Amino acid sequence: MNIQTLKGFRDFLPQEAKKREYVINILKMVFTSYGFEPLETPALEYEEILKGKYGDEGDKLMYKFEDNGKRKVAMRYDQTVPLARVVAQYQNDLPLPFKRYQIQNVWRAENTQKGRYREFLQVDADIVGSYSLLSDAEVLSLVYTSYKSLGLDIQILINDRKNLSNIENKYLSAIDKVGKVEEREIIKEMESKGMSIEEAEKTFNEVKNKPEPSSIIEVRNAFKEMGNPPEIIQYRSVLVRGLDYYTGLIFEVIIKGSEKFFSLGGGGRYDNLIGMFAGKEIPAVGFAFGFDRLIEAMNELNLFPANLAKNGLLVAFASSNLQQKAMEIAQKLREKGINVDFYLDDSSLEKQLKYANKKQIQYVLIVGEKLELKDMETGEQKEVNVEQLPDEIK
Amino acid sequence: MNIQTLKGFRDFLPQEAKKREYVINILKMVFTSYGFEPLETPALEYEEILKGKYGDEGDKLMYKFEDNGKRKVAMRYDQTVPLARVVAQYQNDLPLPFKRYQIQNVWRAENTQKGRYREFLQVDADIVGSYSLLSDAEVLSLVYTSYKSLGLDIQILINDRKNLSNIENKYLSAIDKVGKVEEREIIKEMESKGMSIEEAEKTFNEVKNKPEPSSIIEVRNAFKEMGNPPEIIQYRSVLVRGLDYYTGLIFEVIIKGSEKFFSLGGGGRYDNLIGMFAGKEIPAVGFAFGFDRLIEAMNELNLFPANLAKNGLLVAFASSNLQQKAMEIAQKLREKGINVDFYLDDSSLEKQLKYANKKQIQYVLIVGEKLELKDMETGEQKEVNVEQLPDEIK
Repeated sequence: MNIQTLKGFRDFLPQEAKKREYVINILKMVFTSYGFEPLETPALEYEEILKGKYGDEGDKLMYKFEDNGKRKVAMRYDQTVPLARVVAQYQNDLPLPFKRYQIQNVWRAENTQKGRYREFLQVDADIVGSYSLLSDAEVLSLVYTSYKSLGLDIQILINDRKNLSNIENKYLSAIDKVGKVEEREIIKEMESKGMSIEEAEKTFNEVKNKPEPSSIIEVRNAFKEMGNPPEIIQYRSVLVRGLDYYTGLIFEVIIKGSEKFFSLGGGGRYDNLIGMFAGKEIPAVGFAFGFDRLIEAMNELNLFPANLAKNGLLVAFASSNLQQKAMEIAQKLREKGINVDFYLDDSSLEKQLKYANKKQIQYVLIVGEKLELKDMETGEQKEVNVEQLPDEIK
Repeated sequence: MNIQTLKGFRDFLPQEAKKREYVINILKMVFTSYGFEPLETPALEYEEILKGKYGDEGDKLMYKFEDNGKRKVAMRYDQTVPLARVVAQYQNDLPLPFKRYQIQNVWRAENTQKGRYREFLQVDADIVGSYSLLSDAEVLSLVYTSYKSLGLDIQILINDRKNLSNIENKYLSAIDKVGKVEEREIIKEMESKGMSIEEAEKTFNEVKNKPEPSSIIEVRNAFKEMGNPPEIIQYRSVLVRGLDYYTGLIFEVIIKGSEKFFSLGGGGRYDNLIGMFAGKEIPAVGFAFGFDRLIEAMNELNLFPANLAKNGLLVAFASSNLQQKAMEIAQKLREKGINVDFYLDDSSLEKQLKYANKKQIQYVLIVGEKLELKDMETGEQKEVNVEQLPDEIK
């Protein structure tokens, strides 16, 4: 038997899982400070709820099957269609505008050779039920505060889909590549899709030179009034964003000054989607944080606290007859709010120190004739008493 | 189209989702204080990893299907078999004893008429790699601390499977019903399964009167040395616990003094299971918190903080021209650590108050000619200034 995970699926061992928890906790705190509330939806839905909502590509990549009761079911593919279902199903109970965040896994049978995962966490924050540009601004304020709280210096690129409304989608997907490929390749792609060179160049230049629309100026002002630096929001007339369900402002977050276009997440206004099950138009605006990219960026920029990976303290015993005393001290320290590990087998001090090392424990309190605190990083060791310990290891 | 969730699957709207988050956060804090670390495994595994590990019943209830690549896959059915896979797959990297917690959904195609769910959260804490009874005691100490931290007054029923080793499983499943049905019905069931009345009565009485084994006395002592009241642990010779993979101590948690036997969770030692993929015996002991039951019990006993459901503060504007000023105040308050909601459409004060009511917001700060704070519960309203507000609403 092959003892392994499926391609595109990942285990998160403690070191990695802790980083993820750290980020999620900070994001939740920011979301809550903006009055956003959590929502959870099931991993499985009736297939007909999800099918056809993500285009042919989506239907192909969706995990779907027949359950024991011969129901056609599908695994969560994103969190927007389930949100639309929830809004329709509970429309009498939900306060509108409904400000919700949702942090759950989604599943897509992607080509893993492109470095994509088949199970990945989505972090979404959306406001449902308001046409006001203040909603767009509030989402952007929440987004900026979120990244700032994680230590990331970002820029928000912004455009209005209405700027692009006279151009066919197939040409937009070429224009969307600005920053990733040379401009002449974009022109070439537009040509290959049906335009003459002249038309392609003209269209592309028109898009490039479109003046900033008033909607963006208005949102930037509101963003500023909400206490944020307005220069974070940068107009980018060639920003397209793949999904064609956007109806108004669209945004994309990049790390400030990053030469290469490296999207940390994106979003926008989509006024035609959420109402699909409710049978009426319900406006919405939201943002999806690319969670894996976020972790990757924070790793690269060294933004995780150094002691996050570390485990606090191991209380060790110098000899068997002291194991009980060590256990009591461990408990006393836990009651003082310290995270304390304890080696459970009757073992040599050497073995306990090895365990501490492997588990990346920062301090070991050795219970012998006296108490000694060993810093596992520096190797330094000194006598302490239990009372002063909390200060000692901060 | 039916706009609904699948039978046995649930949405968690904000009120419910917040309760779940509250419990999970407290449990994580306790687990961490004991040096337990988080682990996450995928929703899908190769079917052959899971199949046959839960008996015929498990194979029947498992969600399994063929993915696009014709791989036979199955959805996570519990967190113990994935733990066993992880221990085998990363055996060189994991520090032993491996103290891990895991909080993820599992899926079982249960009969929903019995009030069971098909998607539910499991909360597991296990120690892998130690035979020491101190491990059992540490798990029990963690369990007791967890329930205590949630405000629940519990008892831990305990038995040693070795007490029951000479009795066939089919009779044990009858004995397991003590407290739920009359004793004579248990005898009847044992009879119907093959014993004579005399044998059944004798066997049952033998089990009932078994003296407390030394393993339990030892664990209770260690539990006490870890700072816990020893009377929490109660020997119960008729405790069986369904799963036959237990090899030593088994435990079950009930609410103190609950007449009816109402299990909040259970666990025990299982030394033969975790090593199944690693090809060697790896001892383990752990506990599974019944999450839905826990929420249910806390609801019944009113253990959720009253303000958990409540949202902090809405900053409202008395007239349109004050919306911008209100927005600025909202931001100022957020910076002071207050969770602030804001109504995004240009609306009447009445409509904003209605929104606050529906969203269970506790206080509304009305920005008019002066600032007034309205307590939505009492209706009381008084003038305030922004600086004193954080104290005002604590």
